[in-house]
Amino acid sequence: MIFTEAERNLARDLFARVRIETAVPGGGITRESYGIGETRAIDVLAEEARNLGLETRYDPAANLYITPEGTWPTGAIVVGSHLDSVPCGGNFDGLAGVIAGLLIVLKAKRAGLNKPIVALGLRGEESAWYGVPYVGAKALMGKLTKNELDRPHRTRPRLTLRGAMAGTAAAFSGMTRIEAGERLLSESMISEFWELHIEQGPVLESEKIPVGLVTGVRGNVRAPNARVYGTPGHSGTTPHKLRQDAVVRFADLIMELENRRGKMEESAGTDLVFTCGIAGTDPQHHAMTKIASLVHFSLDIRSMSDDEANGFLEYAQRYAGDTVYWDDIVRTPSAWLSKALFSQTYMACKKLGVPFKDMPSGAGHDAAVFQGAGVPSGMVFVRNQGGSHNPHEDMNIDDFMLGVEVLWETVRS
Amino acid sequence: MIFTEAERNLARDLFARVRIETAVPGGGITRESYGIGETRAIDVLAEEARNLGLETRYDPAANLYITPEGTWPTGAIVVGSHLDSVPCGGNFDGLAGVIAGLLIVLKAKRAGLNKPIVALGLRGEESAWYGVPYVGAKALMGKLTKNELDRPHRTRPRLTLRGAMAGTAAAFSGMTRIEAGERLLSESMISEFWELHIEQGPVLESEKIPVGLVTGVRGNVRAPNARVYGTPGHSGTTPHKLRQDAVVRFADLIMELENRRGKMEESAGTDLVFTCGIAGTDPQHHAMTKIASLVHFSLDIRSMSDDEANGFLEYAQRYAGDTVYWDDIVRTPSAWLSKALFSQTYMACKKLGVPFKDMPSGAGHDAAVFQGAGVPSGMVFVRNQGGSHNPHEDMNIDDFMLGVEVLWETVRS
Repeated sequence: MIFTEAERNLARDLFARVRIETAVPGGGITRESYGIGETRAIDVLAEEARNLGLETRYDPAANLYITPEGTWPTGAIVVGSHLDSVPCGGNFDGLAGVIAGLLIVLKAKRAGLNKPIVALGLRGEESAWYGVPYVGAKALMGKLTKNELDRPHRTRPRLTLRGAMAGTAAAFSGMTRIEAGERLLSESMISEFWELHIEQGPVLESEKIPVGLVTGVRGNVRAPNARVYGTPGHSGTTPHKLRQDAVVRFADLIMELENRRGKMEESAGTDLVFTCGIAGTDPQHHAMTKIASLVHFSLDIRSMSDDEANGFLEYAQRYAGDTVYWDDIVRTPSAWLSKALFSQTYMACKKLGVPFKDMPSGAGHDAAVFQGAGVPSGMVFVRNQGGSHNPHEDMNIDDFMLGVEVLWETVRS
Repeated sequence: MIFTEAERNLARDLFARVRIETAVPGGGITRESYGIGETRAIDVLAEEARNLGLETRYDPAANLYITPEGTWPTGAIVVGSHLDSVPCGGNFDGLAGVIAGLLIVLKAKRAGLNKPIVALGLRGEESAWYGVPYVGAKALMGKLTKNELDRPHRTRPRLTLRGAMAGTAAAFSGMTRIEAGERLLSESMISEFWELHIEQGPVLESEKIPVGLVTGVRGNVRAPNARVYGTPGHSGTTPHKLRQDAVVRFADLIMELENRRGKMEESAGTDLVFTCGIAGTDPQHHAMTKIASLVHFSLDIRSMSDDEANGFLEYAQRYAGDTVYWDDIVRTPSAWLSKALFSQTYMACKKLGVPFKDMPSGAGHDAAVFQGAGVPSGMVFVRNQGGSHNPHEDMNIDDFMLGVEVLWETVRS
């Protein structure tokens, strides 16, 4: 074991203290972006860091940094994640990566490592609060737009994201620089970004593997408002061969796509997933004894290969022909993380004998913002239990420490 | 041609006059059960019957009779259908069968036929107005319940079916007898009931056959509020093999039932039809990026064989296992019409060389009420165009006259 029992207990203690500070009645925790819970989490970690002899500082977007010494090192290796959560979320989503950063800075200081290592606690990653994800990371990279800053709070519409940020970051008079799109963390200040995060899916848990090495973040192709058309008819008097039943057409399309995806996985392997999360007949016109003439539905297709995702939609469009009106198609390209950094984590796992799996991330993460701004970035997933974005989300401390050791071995060597 | 050009023109003229009397702005006709349009239709036909030297009379439920002479013949062969319509319906649904009855009584008188033939114009067949179908026919058979008589009008809740009936039938002080459940048309008064009706489905039109001979009315087995369950999950992070997607389960069930029904038709032939007219994910919880955990849906299964319909539902239940909660199951048994009367129409078609098809009726009809009360009943369908229960419903006068000739040949011989 690279980390000591005391360091492991420190991590466990920090998870417990942040949980207690941000717990909500009925279960789960709430750490609102640029709100009270997020600030409390930062305060717990910053205080403990100072107790441990580390230095803390904040940037104009109110993100927290923990350094071995007081000055910011040139070409820092930054290790971190976010401190906010969705409403009534779980304790480990985001927080795990910041505590990992703290442990690694602590270890670097204790080991006398001659490398510029900084831990980063980001704010505002969750889009649940203002409809904007990665606020802290985007501000650092000068990528936050005026429109995004004008977005209202989800339940208190008179509070904008700008107002919430200014409320915490005002001491640094940072809003002017953020609004100007200034890059707060210049190229010379940061050389790499590393993020440890719980996997927000069930893959590692189901395969009994503690650690995932992330290749990139899947892109998506979405049809939010597609519609299958049919012809209305009497359910008792219309033979099946004369029907144009929108429900059957919809079911047939979904099963065709299921079968096609299954074949893609069998033949060549694919990481493509697709989901119809919303579907329904028309409440204005449907009836138990009437053949449905309309089913509205959504389609969300995700893949590391944008060509594959686009090709899958095109296949669906060809198959459905003129029975489906697809309306708007929204595309977000996939983002590969740094292949060089991926190799380093790969070698670290091999060296440490840690069982791992390389995998794409289906959800978005801060690391993709850094990578997109030209900062080589890498991610390590830790398996989780109980799903994500809910109070039942869970993580084993042994798995967490394995992830931290992989990260430490990576940045150390 | 059995009927003369003048008789054919009489039919055409009657259809046009009733249409004009009951037309609604914007298209279609409205003949409200026990309301103004229905009464106008009765008045047009009764007046014309008297002009033609026939006799008219009414019963305590305000149904119209047309007889060659003034007295009601013992063991009458009654030919008729209904005069009401759905709101903004088509001109031929119901009316065709009453005009057919008038033509046959006229022909019987002119031909000096020595048989007791009576035409019948029934009221209140459509359930659209008071939620009760076959009101006139049920009243004749003493089958109208107090609950049914208490039912409010669809848009004027202070008007009950009882009130509407009394408004037209009061002169006969008939409500007391109707409420007592007295059979108004005793066994000795009626020997057979015949009904000509447009087919309310597309079968005859699609097969280019003018006339259908009806074997019976399909029963149904219904699950109005079934629910497929799944497990919620993130659309980007959950591999397909770990999903329990309610939408995919629903689609799979529908396609399994489609395929099974297709095989039943191929192997042994079946008249079973099934329809999922209502389906949808849960608006309280669904999202484009969330694997659906619930799809609610309805299922309507119809067949002449109650065993087959029940067996089909049982198959669906076995196939779905515990992924579907079926909630209430509502069953209405099928009703065979008279096999003896069916044979008579069959022979008549053969003799006249009229192309025909034997078929079940998917919708309910007055004839089933008579048959159910022990009066041997038969039905002849005439193909229609433009669907049913809408202003575009249409019928070719040549097809109608073929149906009338089949009915005439049947009752004559």
